[in-house]
Amino acid sequence: MTSTSRPVSRRGLLTGGALAAGGTLAAAAVVGATRDGGRTGAPEQVPVAATVGAATEPFHGVRQSGITTEPQAHAAFVAFTLRPGTDRAALGRMLRLLSDDAARLTQGRPALADTEPELGLLPARLTVTFGFGPGLFTAAGLDERRPPSVADLPPFSIDRLQPRWSGGDLLVQICADDPITVAHAQRVLVKDGRPFATVRWVQSGFRRAAGAEPGRTQRNLFGQLDGTANPKPGEPLETAVWIPDGPDWLRDGTTLVVRRISMDLETWDLLGRTDREFSVGRRLDTGAPLTGTAEHDEPDFAALGPDGLTVIPDFSHLTRAHVSDDRFRILRRPYNYDGVPAADGTADSGLIFAAYQADIARQFLPIQQRLAERDLLNEWTTPIGSAVFAIPPGCPEGGWVGQQLLD
Amino acid sequence: MTSTSRPVSRRGLLTGGALAAGGTLAAAAVVGATRDGGRTGAPEQVPVAATVGAATEPFHGVRQSGITTEPQAHAAFVAFTLRPGTDRAALGRMLRLLSDDAARLTQGRPALADTEPELGLLPARLTVTFGFGPGLFTAAGLDERRPPSVADLPPFSIDRLQPRWSGGDLLVQICADDPITVAHAQRVLVKDGRPFATVRWVQSGFRRAAGAEPGRTQRNLFGQLDGTANPKPGEPLETAVWIPDGPDWLRDGTTLVVRRISMDLETWDLLGRTDREFSVGRRLDTGAPLTGTAEHDEPDFAALGPDGLTVIPDFSHLTRAHVSDDRFRILRRPYNYDGVPAADGTADSGLIFAAYQADIARQFLPIQQRLAERDLLNEWTTPIGSAVFAIPPGCPEGGWVGQQLLD
Repeated sequence: MTSTSRPVSRRGLLTGGALAAGGTLAAAAVVGATRDGGRTGAPEQVPVAATVGAATEPFHGVRQSGITTEPQAHAAFVAFTLRPGTDRAALGRMLRLLSDDAARLTQGRPALADTEPELGLLPARLTVTFGFGPGLFTAAGLDERRPPSVADLPPFSIDRLQPRWSGGDLLVQICADDPITVAHAQRVLVKDGRPFATVRWVQSGFRRAAGAEPGRTQRNLFGQLDGTANPKPGEPLETAVWIPDGPDWLRDGTTLVVRRISMDLETWDLLGRTDREFSVGRRLDTGAPLTGTAEHDEPDFAALGPDGLTVIPDFSHLTRAHVSDDRFRILRRPYNYDGVPAADGTADSGLIFAAYQADIARQFLPIQQRLAERDLLNEWTTPIGSAVFAIPPGCPEGGWVGQQLLD
Repeated sequence: MTSTSRPVSRRGLLTGGALAAGGTLAAAAVVGATRDGGRTGAPEQVPVAATVGAATEPFHGVRQSGITTEPQAHAAFVAFTLRPGTDRAALGRMLRLLSDDAARLTQGRPALADTEPELGLLPARLTVTFGFGPGLFTAAGLDERRPPSVADLPPFSIDRLQPRWSGGDLLVQICADDPITVAHAQRVLVKDGRPFATVRWVQSGFRRAAGAEPGRTQRNLFGQLDGTANPKPGEPLETAVWIPDGPDWLRDGTTLVVRRISMDLETWDLLGRTDREFSVGRRLDTGAPLTGTAEHDEPDFAALGPDGLTVIPDFSHLTRAHVSDDRFRILRRPYNYDGVPAADGTADSGLIFAAYQADIARQFLPIQQRLAERDLLNEWTTPIGSAVFAIPPGCPEGGWVGQQLLD
């Protein structure tokens, strides 16, 4: 069969190596160049490094990609239910196979026995990230090694969870800047997973296209900037996300909470702009806290308005979600979803809220508890799905994700 | 209400005018620069004109955009059923309103009373194209002006049409290079259409991301190049697509056939590469006809192989779909769809096949009839939806689409 070798020569026509960083710089330069309003006629010309399709993210490494990776435009979160009989040895075979698929596809090479090899040639910053749900530990006979927080979250009063968006033994998070790349990787991974597992749910989501709005925080479909409070790169991000010690199968890993949050655009759209900004605690246009002028200004929760009330309402989303200690922040990496509207036009829109943190109990849960108790935004948002996964560390070349736990 | 004016000033930071053409040229230069294999180390630097988000396509003009427009990465085809009582006058109000929304959003300005104005600032080459189904003429009391071919297609033996993907009184085709831009435009247009119509179906699809594979023909999820045989720019495209005479409400318009074609990846993936290429009549990697070496080589249907049979099988898709006279070609502008796979991994993948032509009876139907009679590819493809629309001409500033028919 020549199908796996033939495409490699074609690939030379398209790729230029790992040029993602250069592309980002160039894109930033474009924004700078048009800051005069761009009304001067001829387009500004600035250097750019690579096509969106050729850029790659590493697969092999101490940590898995797709977590602190600059978020790609498209994502598919695929949760599997292990088949009866998929034990520790079978899980090892499964993860060995899926890791090999991911190692190839993320670098723009077709998977072994890829039946659509031409669709595997554009990496487009593809990342494939594996997560282990509670059922995987049970299936592997390793319940005692499951971190206590890798379990269903405690119920919250605001939850309206649906089984079809909840749970899962194994998660494969697929992200890329190209939707065909995501579709093909999903197809390969689902097919190769078939002997071991069934598909429990798939949540597909999107952010701004690559290069559409370089350097900006994501906007959700309420129009809000979403993710402003993420830990800053460097030490704060390092501390918040990565597990620094513990067993080797989890060190340099993290944990992931995926919540599907339905956003009621119908009632939100009836709300005036001022009321929306009160409920969030931030300006809708700039994302600045109501006490500031720029997105990343520190909110001043004590500042009082002329009426003697706090400028930022005590029950605003900003107030309730706020964490001042970097160690207790979470890394939000959300994607929008937008299903087919009902006949009467009612939207099926929302957020695939993906949060990474070193410790769910110390980081995610206190925030979620405060939001569930009182958050003005709860009026327009409803959690309809929930799942929790341990994200093991990455693997070196020749290795596979989960090897330290399952081998 | 300040929500519609505030974003305009911010927009100056992001937009650089109508830079789409420059961006395309620059992207082509990138491909050229890396044609040596891109292994030489430092990335090539070539000029690029604008961010993906800032590029615009015109809304006003003699012809509607979104047809011969270089296809954007994302599309939503939204079909409406008119409410009882939506008569000619109401249709006029509806089209006036939706045209105004489209005129603003395509140029990166929020719609009037846009409830998420920040989501309206990135045009990302947004186009909004309106099409009139058979029921619209009836509702307007204008049945006698309906072109005869704007009707349900005759049934084909291969059809397995589902009502939920078929028909429609009014089509709004929304295309952009950014998925949030598409979602927001869809939301605005569905909301503003509410008094007049209900949502009949929405088909969302994708192609390669902007800049991912510049200058290449689209690939579908079978891995095939799709659209190679499109009429060439200039006279052939002009003749094939645009209606040159007839009533003023249709001159410089066209007709659109939307077919939802389910593609059975399960059985396709069992097929060997040679058999796939025989069924299509083209190489999977290059898209070249089996008698040629490059995608756009003319197929030689008479060429015989060593076995005395034609090299391109007589029942191949290429043979059956082939049209040698430019006047009878159709403009294919397809989008991929990829739904949630079943528990056992069975894909829900296929093509939103959108074809534009000046005359359905002389162009689309003969091709479709030949394919329905004999096309090896029918084994793996099934039409599950079908709809036909007249696409009226564009409108000048201050006008609205359909004005010549409905005013």
